[in-house]
Amino acid sequence: MSLSISKINTISAFDAPVRTLLGPGPSDVPQRILAAMARPTIGHLDPEFVRMMDEMKALLKYTFQTNNAMTMAVSAPGSAGMEMCFANLVEPGDKVIVCRNGVFGGRMQENVVRCGGTAIMVEEEWGKPIDLQKVADALKAHPDAQIVAFVHAETSTGVRSDAEALVKLAHEHDCLTIVDTVTSLGGIPVLVDEWGIDAVYSGSQKCLSCTPGLSPVSFNNRAVAKITSRKSKVQSWFLDLNLVMNYWGAGAKRSYHHTAPINSLYGLHEALLMLHEEGLEESWERHQSNHLKLKAAIEPLGIDFFVEEKYRLPQLNAVNIPAGGNDAAIRKTLLEKYSLEIGGGLGPMAGKLWRIGLMGHSSNEANIEKLTMALGDVLGA
Amino acid sequence: MSLSISKINTISAFDAPVRTLLGPGPSDVPQRILAAMARPTIGHLDPEFVRMMDEMKALLKYTFQTNNAMTMAVSAPGSAGMEMCFANLVEPGDKVIVCRNGVFGGRMQENVVRCGGTAIMVEEEWGKPIDLQKVADALKAHPDAQIVAFVHAETSTGVRSDAEALVKLAHEHDCLTIVDTVTSLGGIPVLVDEWGIDAVYSGSQKCLSCTPGLSPVSFNNRAVAKITSRKSKVQSWFLDLNLVMNYWGAGAKRSYHHTAPINSLYGLHEALLMLHEEGLEESWERHQSNHLKLKAAIEPLGIDFFVEEKYRLPQLNAVNIPAGGNDAAIRKTLLEKYSLEIGGGLGPMAGKLWRIGLMGHSSNEANIEKLTMALGDVLGA
Repeated sequence: MSLSISKINTISAFDAPVRTLLGPGPSDVPQRILAAMARPTIGHLDPEFVRMMDEMKALLKYTFQTNNAMTMAVSAPGSAGMEMCFANLVEPGDKVIVCRNGVFGGRMQENVVRCGGTAIMVEEEWGKPIDLQKVADALKAHPDAQIVAFVHAETSTGVRSDAEALVKLAHEHDCLTIVDTVTSLGGIPVLVDEWGIDAVYSGSQKCLSCTPGLSPVSFNNRAVAKITSRKSKVQSWFLDLNLVMNYWGAGAKRSYHHTAPINSLYGLHEALLMLHEEGLEESWERHQSNHLKLKAAIEPLGIDFFVEEKYRLPQLNAVNIPAGGNDAAIRKTLLEKYSLEIGGGLGPMAGKLWRIGLMGHSSNEANIEKLTMALGDVLGA
Repeated sequence: MSLSISKINTISAFDAPVRTLLGPGPSDVPQRILAAMARPTIGHLDPEFVRMMDEMKALLKYTFQTNNAMTMAVSAPGSAGMEMCFANLVEPGDKVIVCRNGVFGGRMQENVVRCGGTAIMVEEEWGKPIDLQKVADALKAHPDAQIVAFVHAETSTGVRSDAEALVKLAHEHDCLTIVDTVTSLGGIPVLVDEWGIDAVYSGSQKCLSCTPGLSPVSFNNRAVAKITSRKSKVQSWFLDLNLVMNYWGAGAKRSYHHTAPINSLYGLHEALLMLHEEGLEESWERHQSNHLKLKAAIEPLGIDFFVEEKYRLPQLNAVNIPAGGNDAAIRKTLLEKYSLEIGGGLGPMAGKLWRIGLMGHSSNEANIEKLTMALGDVLGA
């Protein structure tokens, strides 16, 4: 037999550059977490691995501040965590109130539609938090709505919405809540049990400072009750919570579902452990204080913030590109000359905003100094 | 604010044991690949990362022996690769002929049903290859069938079906083909272009010897034509090929879809590079010759094979548990005393079969000697 596709002579081992990651994620991954990912691979049914999964569940419960038994990491990125929430909770014909003040609310809408549901959109200007009154109006106009979905920390604009109040409002109208905490978890308070969030998902690569590819999720008993009383099968086999949860040990008996991403989970275990060692409150304080230091450092360069002060996310600083600044050229120079990444704007914000992440391990003074120096250079300030 | 869930005092860094992985996957991951996974994380839109993705596409094309532009790695395990194929190719009402001779054919059926399709099952006894005549009969009985789906190398039983002949037969009836090569890719010939496979998926953790969590896939133009002419949206946003492919650079313009699992992809790049350095044909020969060595070593211990000789997979050796052997106790001893993992049987084969994987880097003489010695010990031979 002869091969029709022959070897390529130009490919060698990938020499990953060392970057300072101050974009919207991934954030800097500490050496301790990278080293954890390089530990020997073991089987996904190995008793030692199962013990590690149980520890991770405990660490995730601390991180989410929940006692939910259904707390685990989806074996795929945050977008799959989002889809797990919608695919399990939304049945064909269900009406879902979706709040949109940026890119990720739009993705929620896509999910509702693809699950056969109807998305009632509550629109807000990009850069503004979700307006409680508009949500209340939508709930009154649609008394048959079953779910309210919103993004806690909008990664595309750096704005924080009032998750606690939104959940309370939804519950007053007997709706379940699906909350995106991809960018908030670990950086600002996310109190799943205290606020009563019913279904929540996050990502590994933001304020947890792990490598991308995993999505922590948690479901309370109200959410589980809706899932177990579904009339139709969950349309995704891979994301069917009834099956996945048996593997994560919340069912009667642990059974094989899919092969878990072993080494990525080693990394997340270590990342959660580091956050646990620091303490959630201490992490929130660090994110807030470094945000203020960044503000003090870059405002003198003529850079101002996109979001009103009280709604700003400390971990994701959306700033207006200074007049005359060439977005692409400046970010290219930052990357090539300083090996420093910041994010551009998404969608309608492209060319207007920069997104400066100070998330997880990236949130430190040395990074702020490096960025300030580099920005001063490229802006000629 | 006080936390309702307090810290746990009993969790420390996970000390992963060093195992010899001779089960149905994951296989032994070489140090070179583990080290690659620990390289510094960079952004998923970093030009260096994009260059790495392009190299990976070229390496995947070599591995699959295809020129398909739509060749990439799904950011999730093999089960998600399977779901990507079905969710994109099956529309509600479509009739799909699904061949089942083990666990994974059953999972294909689940996928068809959850996509709103009708699965016409072609059943075969576990341990036997798919019968071409039965497939031909099903195609004649269902002239409106649009797809034939089958597993090339059944991981639950260690049997190989004739992929080339099955694809040819399906094409004679104007059907597309979806082929599971999770366990075959890299271990035995998988010639996507020569055989004309339309949609194919695999896993990273079998004969590629990478960590679990990624699923190489490839789609030819016939498959792409069906996807782009769909009447309904793909029900999964995360797995929608139209969107994913733009990120992998086969669309008009590279655009953000989800955050790729950066470090896992470093690992797969290195794993594919190692296979490429060895050469596909050399890898196939190594798997075959080590299979014969295993056979020669364990048959004297009274262990015989489950599958008829000509259909055996060299990389996944399903053997009958010797009479009187206590399945669970023996595998526990192998793990605890020799840090050696072999697989048990799945479903109806539980307690009857062991599955001895000699996949990827695990396929070497030292492992065969270690296993033979350990089995001789635990069986008292």
